[in-house]
Amino acid sequence: MEQTGRLTLPTDADVVAETLRLKNLLGADALRDCDGTEMPKELLTDPAKKYATYYTTRKDNAWAEANPDEVQQEYLISDRHTARGTKLRIHLMDGFHTQQLKVNTLDDPKRWWEVIDRTTGEVVPTDKWFFDEPTGEVEIETVPYHEYTVSFLAFLIWDPVHMYNFLTNDWKDTPHQLTYDVRQPKTQAYVKEKLRRWCEANPHIDVVRFTTFFHQFTLTFDDQKREKFVEWFGYSASVSPYILEKFEKWAGYKFRPEFIVDQGYHNTMFRVPSKEFRDFIEFQQQEVCALAKEMVDIVHSYGKEAMMFLGDHWIGTEPYGKYFASIGLDAVVGSVGSGVTLRMISDIKGVKYTEGRLLPYFFPDVFTEGGDPIGEARTNWMKARRAILRSPLDRIGYGGYLKLASNWPGFIDEIQNVVGEFRQIHENMQGTKSYVAPFKVAILNCWGGLRKWMSNQVHHSIYHRETYSAEGVLECLSGMPFDVEFIDFDDIRNGIPKDIGVIINVGDAYTAFSGAENWIDEKVVTAIRKFVDEGGGFIGVGEPTACQHQGRYFQLSDVMGVDREMGFSLSTDKYNTCDPHHFILEDIDTAVDFGEGTSRIYAQGKHYQILAQDGEYSQLVVNEYGKGHSVYFAGLPYSPQNCRILLRAIYYAAGMPEEMKHYYVTNVDTEVTVFPETKRIAVINNADAEEKTDLYIKGHLIDSLTLAPREMRWVDDAE
Amino acid sequence: MEQTGRLTLPTDADVVAETLRLKNLLGADALRDCDGTEMPKELLTDPAKKYATYYTTRKDNAWAEANPDEVQQEYLISDRHTARGTKLRIHLMDGFHTQQLKVNTLDDPKRWWEVIDRTTGEVVPTDKWFFDEPTGEVEIETVPYHEYTVSFLAFLIWDPVHMYNFLTNDWKDTPHQLTYDVRQPKTQAYVKEKLRRWCEANPHIDVVRFTTFFHQFTLTFDDQKREKFVEWFGYSASVSPYILEKFEKWAGYKFRPEFIVDQGYHNTMFRVPSKEFRDFIEFQQQEVCALAKEMVDIVHSYGKEAMMFLGDHWIGTEPYGKYFASIGLDAVVGSVGSGVTLRMISDIKGVKYTEGRLLPYFFPDVFTEGGDPIGEARTNWMKARRAILRSPLDRIGYGGYLKLASNWPGFIDEIQNVVGEFRQIHENMQGTKSYVAPFKVAILNCWGGLRKWMSNQVHHSIYHRETYSAEGVLECLSGMPFDVEFIDFDDIRNGIPKDIGVIINVGDAYTAFSGAENWIDEKVVTAIRKFVDEGGGFIGVGEPTACQHQGRYFQLSDVMGVDREMGFSLSTDKYNTCDPHHFILEDIDTAVDFGEGTSRIYAQGKHYQILAQDGEYSQLVVNEYGKGHSVYFAGLPYSPQNCRILLRAIYYAAGMPEEMKHYYVTNVDTEVTVFPETKRIAVINNADAEEKTDLYIKGHLIDSLTLAPREMRWVDDAE
Repeated sequence: MEQTGRLTLPTDADVVAETLRLKNLLGADALRDCDGTEMPKELLTDPAKKYATYYTTRKDNAWAEANPDEVQQEYLISDRHTARGTKLRIHLMDGFHTQQLKVNTLDDPKRWWEVIDRTTGEVVPTDKWFFDEPTGEVEIETVPYHEYTVSFLAFLIWDPVHMYNFLTNDWKDTPHQLTYDVRQPKTQAYVKEKLRRWCEANPHIDVVRFTTFFHQFTLTFDDQKREKFVEWFGYSASVSPYILEKFEKWAGYKFRPEFIVDQGYHNTMFRVPSKEFRDFIEFQQQEVCALAKEMVDIVHSYGKEAMMFLGDHWIGTEPYGKYFASIGLDAVVGSVGSGVTLRMISDIKGVKYTEGRLLPYFFPDVFTEGGDPIGEARTNWMKARRAILRSPLDRIGYGGYLKLASNWPGFIDEIQNVVGEFRQIHENMQGTKSYVAPFKVAILNCWGGLRKWMSNQVHHSIYHRETYSAEGVLECLSGMPFDVEFIDFDDIRNGIPKDIGVIINVGDAYTAFSGAENWIDEKVVTAIRKFVDEGGGFIGVGEPTACQHQGRYFQLSDVMGVDREMGFSLSTDKYNTCDPHHFILEDIDTAVDFGEGTSRIYAQGKHYQILAQDGEYSQLVVNEYGKGHSVYFAGLPYSPQNCRILLRAIYYAAGMPEEMKHYYVTNVDTEVTVFPETKRIAVINNADAEEKTDLYIKGHLIDSLTLAPREMRWVDDAE
Repeated sequence: MEQTGRLTLPTDADVVAETLRLKNLLGADALRDCDGTEMPKELLTDPAKKYATYYTTRKDNAWAEANPDEVQQEYLISDRHTARGTKLRIHLMDGFHTQQLKVNTLDDPKRWWEVIDRTTGEVVPTDKWFFDEPTGEVEIETVPYHEYTVSFLAFLIWDPVHMYNFLTNDWKDTPHQLTYDVRQPKTQAYVKEKLRRWCEANPHIDVVRFTTFFHQFTLTFDDQKREKFVEWFGYSASVSPYILEKFEKWAGYKFRPEFIVDQGYHNTMFRVPSKEFRDFIEFQQQEVCALAKEMVDIVHSYGKEAMMFLGDHWIGTEPYGKYFASIGLDAVVGSVGSGVTLRMISDIKGVKYTEGRLLPYFFPDVFTEGGDPIGEARTNWMKARRAILRSPLDRIGYGGYLKLASNWPGFIDEIQNVVGEFRQIHENMQGTKSYVAPFKVAILNCWGGLRKWMSNQVHHSIYHRETYSAEGVLECLSGMPFDVEFIDFDDIRNGIPKDIGVIINVGDAYTAFSGAENWIDEKVVTAIRKFVDEGGGFIGVGEPTACQHQGRYFQLSDVMGVDREMGFSLSTDKYNTCDPHHFILEDIDTAVDFGEGTSRIYAQGKHYQILAQDGEYSQLVVNEYGKGHSVYFAGLPYSPQNCRILLRAIYYAAGMPEEMKHYYVTNVDTEVTVFPETKRIAVINNADAEEKTDLYIKGHLIDSLTLAPREMRWVDDAE
């Protein structure tokens, strides 16, 4: 049994002895500092690998203060104001925190700002407004009772993550860290040179952990220091006139602030990305990856490894972008909030290894009276474990203040169990691939492969009532025996890849996840109809294929056998009755949880069967379409039971129900993963109770297992 | 006390003696026959007024059979079919009942039918399809995996209402009544002559009750004789090539079947009416009212009264149409399902009197084991009474088989109570107007004054889960002390009338009730913003002002202080907290019922107060806007409590909370109506329990009343 390795622990100046004790106890082979902690000098000569957080864009206020023109910038949009007369004054910084952001008065507002009449959508000509610097207000000539916004540039005078950590940890005396923009010439030269000097000065550091590359995701605070806007995929803070002028040359058209502020939505993942925003992403990824490569090359030239923290200043380096692999990173480390976020890290290509930062962080918000760090660690591990069995991280680790963890009774035992199971998985799989169904499952949305395992996430694994029902599909899939592809509508237009057996479309109408106007493109609908007609599977969750057009809301209502009542067809009688007897529900003896669900779904056509209803509305409907099959879910939040229902739905949709029992466990709270090459089988219990489950291989009962709460049991594949 | 009059009873050949007994007992002054019953000869000389149902469009199969080309027609749309190859055959009558409808093969399909590619919305050229009459199929040259429909004309070979009555009453030997189209020349001449002969032959009949004028609302049955489509306002069965050719000349453009079938939605009330459909309504109302006038003139020439049944064949004569008054009818009679349907009848102008047919009909579906006719009568009366107090019907009556009612123990007592209260109201009001607030309340939607009290109704007072929450607003208003106007968006564009104090917008997004694209018309939003800013009130229920545009879903989010989260702004933090302490909720000590409600509502701006929440979503929000006020409800089903909440919301929105206690009762289950001219006050108990309530006049406590269940108490206005 592996007893050591694959584990990174945080340390700090005041916990040297405890670090060494825990390092030995848990078999850690790497130590790290964190934002706000320091690597103790005493440990620099320890044989463990040493990671050092490295900040290219902050922790150097002297430089930032000396170069105010190269402080990072963010596009902001003012509050919306309705004019009551023909003149309106908008105070730009209302609702923003002036300790975080400062209006950019160095660059010409008339060149870089935009005043928009939101009633008409028209841009207000620059001769009809001006910025009154002393008052901080823009004065606009207005049409009475039209609504206006001002989009403007502001300097990021407090790094958003530093601000977040400062506020979360209630730091008092720490100076606010200013930002600077590594893309700009002076700073770029300075930062590269500084990195070289740092590498020279830190010979004992093995891994340079780029906690920041260059651009922070959008994280804006309000005037009460509360989070105001957060978009993990947001590019709003990756701008400056310097960059935008380069973009204009590259793109061949004039930049508009509206490409970034996007009516105030700031291009969240839910927005169907405009051509201009896609162009901007492409441009930034090219530029940022090239520059990141230069930094990584410097690190390598000193014999050190370069690791990127996934998140924070990752804009332009998102790992599923086209240019990511060219950076030449050795590793990516990211925070694991769930199975989905784990897969987002563990599926990354183009690095030597991936590392997951498990929850909870050793921060005082959890390690406090009323907090439940052990419970959080268990929940986190239950979600992570099933995803690791499908696509393993190479390493795991923790972050924060080690002292908090070591002082919490029982917490270290919990970690010991996690680390032990993690090593067991590697030992049993021996780097081989687990068994998957003989077809691929594709998630179809507007982002496709660019944002694998990222779809439907507002912010990584933060719960939203509006999204958990849809996100559940990905969370279920993260630990299921399927190869999952993420495809976009162009992938459909260019010909659905042959190895795809089931296409899944999940999301709210008109969002990038559902697909919006893509569903009135005849190329898209005919391709999918043909695919299903010829035997393919289609699964829709929420408002799949939704776009009101020509008498239907769901454009593939013929494929799915359902549509949503938007009021227009109330005069049409529906005679929907439920018949839950179906392959999909065979293991299920309690009510299905559809989460927030989707109201007003009705079945239609001649080939449907309704498996679950809420009153007269349908919640789970299967439909036959030519040789193919479709399944509609009103919602599918993550739960062990819903994993099982989705498992069955996918095999049903693929037209291969008999394949499901190739490897199978009967109890819905349990799952099975098989490593055919090592002939090892893991049966996991996802419940907090003891569970009995029967194991089937190729339809034969092989074993009856009784699993302890949360147990992972390894058995030989006797096949 | 009035002991007689204002009451119509149904009779039949087999209940002469019982008719006379009940006539005397209840003080009825009119007798009527019904569809399926017969006026007994013995009663023809009774001093009571005699009504005779009269059918211009049916009950003459000989004529219909002799003139098959003048049988009424309906535009149908086939099922949607997806082509799997380049040829598709659609069997037109699939899903329709061949006893009700027959494909019109007399008129040229290529002229009057339309094949549409529903994937693209394009019309398939007529040379790419043909009707194969022997098989009843249309064959189409198709694009693979496109979806197709055929719109076609069919003859109505069984009158829909006759079919409905036949099925409901389980008639066996009654021949199916064919229809004929009074608009067409041969039939028109025949029907007029027949009416003259009928008038001559029936000297004892005082009132010709036109149960049918000319065109039935759309009521289509499926192949299992179940209702397939029903639209009380539908014009789909008012068509024929004869009429459509006249329409083309009148309108100056070519007719298309799509104007009628409307993507399969058949122009339900929920659809924003297209220009062409509005033109068709206008044309039909002109023509139908002119022809109806000719019929009424004939009736008058024989010294009889002409009464119209509101419903069934009322298409073109809807009483709030521009030409209705020109018909010269003496009376309208309609079925009262609720306060709303009562007001729809009692508010009609241009007739001498209105009459309401109270529920239940004396039909065997209610007067049967397990039925509750007394309960239905009480519920019906509770809703009707409060509306009658605001706008009285002149008469009430019943329909169906008298024998069923007289045999049901206690039912006649119940009627006696209803009739007594009805007469009391008239006696106390003496034809004067009840007290109303010093401002008008306007319901704003795409239909406006054309369909007063008809908005949000799928079918008159039939419950729909999708609509009851919104319809509740109208039901509440039907018995409240406000003058209610129904206005459309042109009324807003042309200048909001000065006497309107509060504008209400109720409905689902993109429906005719909410308003759809009207909300991105700057004329509309600026007019309402100005109205509210200067002191007006705005109340939104459901998805008011909804139309995704320029960063907002609710276009008057600034006025209302709320918007709906459509996924795009999940990255924007909301800090919504509830504070229920407000004038609007002062009488309320239990949870508010928002019915189906509206999910994902959040408050925004700087002037709101959230009065009710579901988790973090808002359900009831008030907002100050300049000098004006707004109230948002996530839903408002009818209940006595919600009447009270709406009452308060309206006074709050109007900026006149102090006016509310001009006349006021404290108990939410009670309401007060005041007739200032006769100085009489009615306090009604809308509950089935005894209730205590305090009566205030001009803010002073006048009396403390204890009311029996459902009691109506009259007191003097001591003011």
